[in-house]
Amino acid sequence: MGEKKRIGILTSGGDCAGLNAVIRAVVHHAMGTYGWEVVGIREATHGLMTRPPQVMEFELDKLDSLLLMGGTILGTTNKGDPFAFPMGDGTLRDRSQEIIDGYHSLGLDALIGIGGDGSLAILRRLAQQGGINLVGIPKTIDNDVGATEVSIGFDTATNIATEALDRLHFTAASHNRVMILEVMGRDAGHIALAAGIAGGADIILIPEIPYQMENVCQKIRQRQEMGKNFCLVMVSEAVRTEVGDQLTELKAAGEDRLGGIGKYLAEQIALKTGAETRVTVLGHIQRGGMPSPVDRLLGSAFGVAAVDLIAQGKYDQMVAWQNRQIVSVPIAEAINTYRSVDPEETLVKTARGLGICLGD
Amino acid sequence: MGEKKRIGILTSGGDCAGLNAVIRAVVHHAMGTYGWEVVGIREATHGLMTRPPQVMEFELDKLDSLLLMGGTILGTTNKGDPFAFPMGDGTLRDRSQEIIDGYHSLGLDALIGIGGDGSLAILRRLAQQGGINLVGIPKTIDNDVGATEVSIGFDTATNIATEALDRLHFTAASHNRVMILEVMGRDAGHIALAAGIAGGADIILIPEIPYQMENVCQKIRQRQEMGKNFCLVMVSEAVRTEVGDQLTELKAAGEDRLGGIGKYLAEQIALKTGAETRVTVLGHIQRGGMPSPVDRLLGSAFGVAAVDLIAQGKYDQMVAWQNRQIVSVPIAEAINTYRSVDPEETLVKTARGLGICLGD
Amino acid sequence: MGEKKRIGILTSGGDCAGLNAVIRAVVHHAMGTYGWEVVGIREATHGLMTRPPQVMEFELDKLDSLLLMGGTILGTTNKGDPFAFPMGDGTLRDRSQEIIDGYHSLGLDALIGIGGDGSLAILRRLAQQGGINLVGIPKTIDNDVGATEVSIGFDTATNIATEALDRLHFTAASHNRVMILEVMGRDAGHIALAAGIAGGADIILIPEIPYQMENVCQKIRQRQEMGKNFCLVMVSEAVRTEVGDQLTELKAAGEDRLGGIGKYLAEQIALKTGAETRVTVLGHIQRGGMPSPVDRLLGSAFGVAAVDLIAQGKYDQMVAWQNRQIVSVPIAEAINTYRSVDPEETLVKTARGLGICLGD
Amino acid sequence: MGEKKRIGILTSGGDCAGLNAVIRAVVHHAMGTYGWEVVGIREATHGLMTRPPQVMEFELDKLDSLLLMGGTILGTTNKGDPFAFPMGDGTLRDRSQEIIDGYHSLGLDALIGIGGDGSLAILRRLAQQGGINLVGIPKTIDNDVGATEVSIGFDTATNIATEALDRLHFTAASHNRVMILEVMGRDAGHIALAAGIAGGADIILIPEIPYQMENVCQKIRQRQEMGKNFCLVMVSEAVRTEVGDQLTELKAAGEDRLGGIGKYLAEQIALKTGAETRVTVLGHIQRGGMPSPVDRLLGSAFGVAAVDLIAQGKYDQMVAWQNRQIVSVPIAEAINTYRSVDPEETLVKTARGLGICLGD
Repeated sequence: MGEKKRIGILTSGGDCAGLNAVIRAVVHHAMGTYGWEVVGIREATHGLMTRPPQVMEFELDKLDSLLLMGGTILGTTNKGDPFAFPMGDGTLRDRSQEIIDGYHSLGLDALIGIGGDGSLAILRRLAQQGGINLVGIPKTIDNDVGATEVSIGFDTATNIATEALDRLHFTAASHNRVMILEVMGRDAGHIALAAGIAGGADIILIPEIPYQMENVCQKIRQRQEMGKNFCLVMVSEAVRTEVGDQLTELKAAGEDRLGGIGKYLAEQIALKTGAETRVTVLGHIQRGGMPSPVDRLLGSAFGVAAVDLIAQGKYDQMVAWQNRQIVSVPIAEAINTYRSVDPEETLVKTARGLGICLGD
Repeated sequence: MGEKKRIGILTSGGDCAGLNAVIRAVVHHAMGTYGWEVVGIREATHGLMTRPPQVMEFELDKLDSLLLMGGTILGTTNKGDPFAFPMGDGTLRDRSQEIIDGYHSLGLDALIGIGGDGSLAILRRLAQQGGINLVGIPKTIDNDVGATEVSIGFDTATNIATEALDRLHFTAASHNRVMILEVMGRDAGHIALAAGIAGGADIILIPEIPYQMENVCQKIRQRQEMGKNFCLVMVSEAVRTEVGDQLTELKAAGEDRLGGIGKYLAEQIALKTGAETRVTVLGHIQRGGMPSPVDRLLGSAFGVAAVDLIAQGKYDQMVAWQNRQIVSVPIAEAINTYRSVDPEETLVKTARGLGICLGD
Repeated sequence: MGEKKRIGILTSGGDCAGLNAVIRAVVHHAMGTYGWEVVGIREATHGLMTRPPQVMEFELDKLDSLLLMGGTILGTTNKGDPFAFPMGDGTLRDRSQEIIDGYHSLGLDALIGIGGDGSLAILRRLAQQGGINLVGIPKTIDNDVGATEVSIGFDTATNIATEALDRLHFTAASHNRVMILEVMGRDAGHIALAAGIAGGADIILIPEIPYQMENVCQKIRQRQEMGKNFCLVMVSEAVRTEVGDQLTELKAAGEDRLGGIGKYLAEQIALKTGAETRVTVLGHIQRGGMPSPVDRLLGSAFGVAAVDLIAQGKYDQMVAWQNRQIVSVPIAEAINTYRSVDPEETLVKTARGLGICLGD
Repeated sequence: MGEKKRIGILTSGGDCAGLNAVIRAVVHHAMGTYGWEVVGIREATHGLMTRPPQVMEFELDKLDSLLLMGGTILGTTNKGDPFAFPMGDGTLRDRSQEIIDGYHSLGLDALIGIGGDGSLAILRRLAQQGGINLVGIPKTIDNDVGATEVSIGFDTATNIATEALDRLHFTAASHNRVMILEVMGRDAGHIALAAGIAGGADIILIPEIPYQMENVCQKIRQRQEMGKNFCLVMVSEAVRTEVGDQLTELKAAGEDRLGGIGKYLAEQIALKTGAETRVTVLGHIQRGGMPSPVDRLLGSAFGVAAVDLIAQGKYDQMVAWQNRQIVSVPIAEAINTYRSVDPEETLVKTARGLGICLGD
């Protein structure tokens, strides 16, 4: 089995379903198969910045319930870029060396970092600067990490968004209303597109395809002429208004974006079609909840494969899912190929084939 | 089986899960058991106001999927009080006689009206004025109808709100956030109280128990001292701010209430405790979705019992659930005993026993 | 708050959903509100029989995940009646005094026993013989405990059985099959009746209503004549064949009852109607799983109320749910009024009104 | 858009979740986008064998609820191979020409056939013999069709099997039992492997990896030594006993396989380890139920792509999912590359990494 190692694991960026499945798999394989030590680092790089570093011990026989738990038992933070860390007094400071020192003070041979493209880029920079043996695992509900077909968390988030649309369907039909559901996804429309198709949306708006309000209203009128006085509209949070950046001010309210694009659409549609509209902002419900079987499976496979990469001494690599198999790709490749929705991809064609209005 | 009858059925007020189970049961029992005719009236009293009345026919062998469908296949409306109906030009007109005429024009022997306390009060007034043989069935996610332990729709809505809290739990814990979930319920806190307890809320605010912001912040700080930097806050939509009616203006935005009490609490808690807060407004998702087994069962039992009341010639009665049995009560009794949360009731004591902060 | 107490809690008999909600509530209220000590006793009375007694300590701040967990963290057993305990060598011995001694050796002031009618009867006999201050809490998926409208575990089990019927519906219709679902319930048909109605069964057979095979076949043929070549049959595990005890031999196989009444019906129906039949035995899936909101709520309310009974010195009582409130009743009353399905009760009438064949 | 076409669609073989999503997509795209006619053929090739052929008409505005419905509204059958059709009198007859004649009598330009490898092979033979323009769509819960990463129905079936294991987990732990869950999959272990990992099984037995009973018992004892007296065993229906074909007789009971490998394992494990065992045979529940978002999405994408293949005149092709895109492959390729679990594939390695016993 080679020499005994001591490895660290941390979860970085927004939480999602499946992170605990990764942690469970890493601990099982590293401790159980290889006989290594595993150190859980709390709250992402923040746990390495504090002194002493904030860590968690694991016991092989107490991992049972991790498969069922959403979020991450290690915690995570969005406190800021360690290379330009907000100090509270308005200044920014480069605290990267503190993290690197924290890593080495723990006597670690390697680090498994679970994150989206932003977190992986930062972890890679830290690794290169500080001699950290890094293996990356892609996670994000937005599914925008390149080089892997899917990241952890996307399936569960899509399930939740689909279920919300299922629920809105019946109340929309009962009341002859236009129901607007605003979902997460940052700059990529993957959740909106997938859940919109799966949940039977009539209109799906994503950041990658600029829309015209007139096309949206046209679709609603067409349905009215068919005798259907209700309509389901799925919209991704980062969609800009058809007149451009009008929402800047509204969005300044922050991540929750209450009163963002969903509300704007509701008001405009009501104004232009006379329809009764209602908006639901799904929000953080999309992140939480029990992980779907796919996310548990993917997390388990990624965790085992990441440990194997360390055993083989292959660093600066990210595990990825391609064609039903785990492969490894250079982290650089993953973070340099941001994956938004390709207007020519299968799901876009599927949506058009189903007669769904994409706003263009 | 007595003489052959021809009965009407309508669903009135906000939609909820279980309405289609009632319709299915009424059709099965009236047509299948008694051999009567059943006329479905579309969009509540509005279907009787139009000429000719808007109706739906039923076929006994095509009722299969109704158990699984949320909402109401008959449709419903909130277009206004028929005794003071908004005419579009700003005036109000008494259109009650049109509805009564519509009822008689259909040659109906009796009418089953499914509604909450408001709808049942209007239907009863119409019945008394126009000689309509009315039987009522209580439905409302708010569970505020008197004289029955439970109304159709409450169980499903509570399940959905509990599930939302379950989901927020993990993401709250991962990010050390105070998560606020705003749920429906109108002037009664039943959904917030039941789902708050079932979903493990730390703080539950309901309209029936005025809160002090200081108590809320105190609870959050207590948890921080225990090492728990996250907190789940459940709040009912009609909770007023601790300083009174400050939200009047915000709420004027309408039924959706984005930016209502939930948002207010998030801002105040962030300000006073320094905690990172997020708010989710569950909205219309609570109404929709596949009915829970309880709502299907309750709807089926109510539907069968309502038909039996007509067979017995017992009108001006509402079916009700008491001690595992269906009973009938005068509609007047139900609408005169609005049921909000009693501060001495079992669930309030349960919440206190669990250490949940109710804000007082 | 009165004198400080030290209380024990145990879960006895078959596990079900909601037990951990009771444990969580008892610990919260006893430790958090009253400042008492709580001792968890492992594996029911077996934990008091071993030396030293097998116990579990609780920490107030580590109860979070209990609401979501099925089963019981205290464990339970079916090892046998302590008054006639099977010793492994084929003999039976009265070990009641060992349990009583175990209770007193822990210095307990009172004991909360969670069980069905059988377990509560045994616990009460131990309490009377040994001076144990006992408070009972009713739990059983079978819902056959008297004096309470509902016991812990029934709602979740009914949900699972309904969901199974929902799933069988579509595959039955696609293949024109008669699908038979055998569910638990021991001598009471509550699960079969409730889930059968909620899940749209065409035929429901329960132990309380003897059936004639000819009536079952007649219903299947009637549906065929309506053009419906599929049929959903719900049957409770303890239903006897129409010719009496023919299944004795088959059932000797034990609790799992594979090849029990469900299989018998499948064979007979195939023989007599020529229909293609399939049988599913739901089994232990009904016990497990995440508790429903109702079971979490009920468990929480029962737990808090049981602690209050101890605070008031009211022993030999069982908490019960009646008309939306917790009340307390003498344990004797609960165990002397076994509640099977009353052939005149609401749900039976509902089933008949829906045209469901009950076999009689 | 090219010439107007008239196309047929049928679903063949065992039903699964997602078939109705395909039908909906085909109708939307063929009728809505291309303006073609679509004829639904009932009960697979059987609908073409009867005179007149049994067909179903579609209306574009009545497809709403299809996304949510399991099974297939077209029906399906397992009545037998049309090239050697069982005639009821014990003889077999080649009825292929009747089907071909039925196809041509409907004036169809092309046929979309949805099936597993067996059904697709038969449809292809019919197509070649009778000049049918065939496009295939892969569906099977077993996920054993070659040339596509995934077939319709697998995701939903895996979800249901995972959920069942989740539920058994808690009751197993509460009672210190070895729980055995027998799932479908025919000769491939995909469902057992995926759901076993996702649901936290301790032991997974699949047909592709012969097991030794001693290894199974060893794993159970190991866990006992760690203080865990319960164990979750997932077994695929076609696993043979460790001594070979001993189950032949038991399995003769038919497709339901009550008393098959699951029961055998339960008996052997009880005998050899003294553990208390229980077995659950999940059965037809795996086929039914509301389709998962993935199956709705996949079905929609396959349906749209199949219509596009017809528009392009590309026949004898099957749509397939590869690397997040729909591609088309020769049907011959798909049916000639049966895909069972590869003992070197990612999920097998994942299982081993997690310490799961695979019996070898």
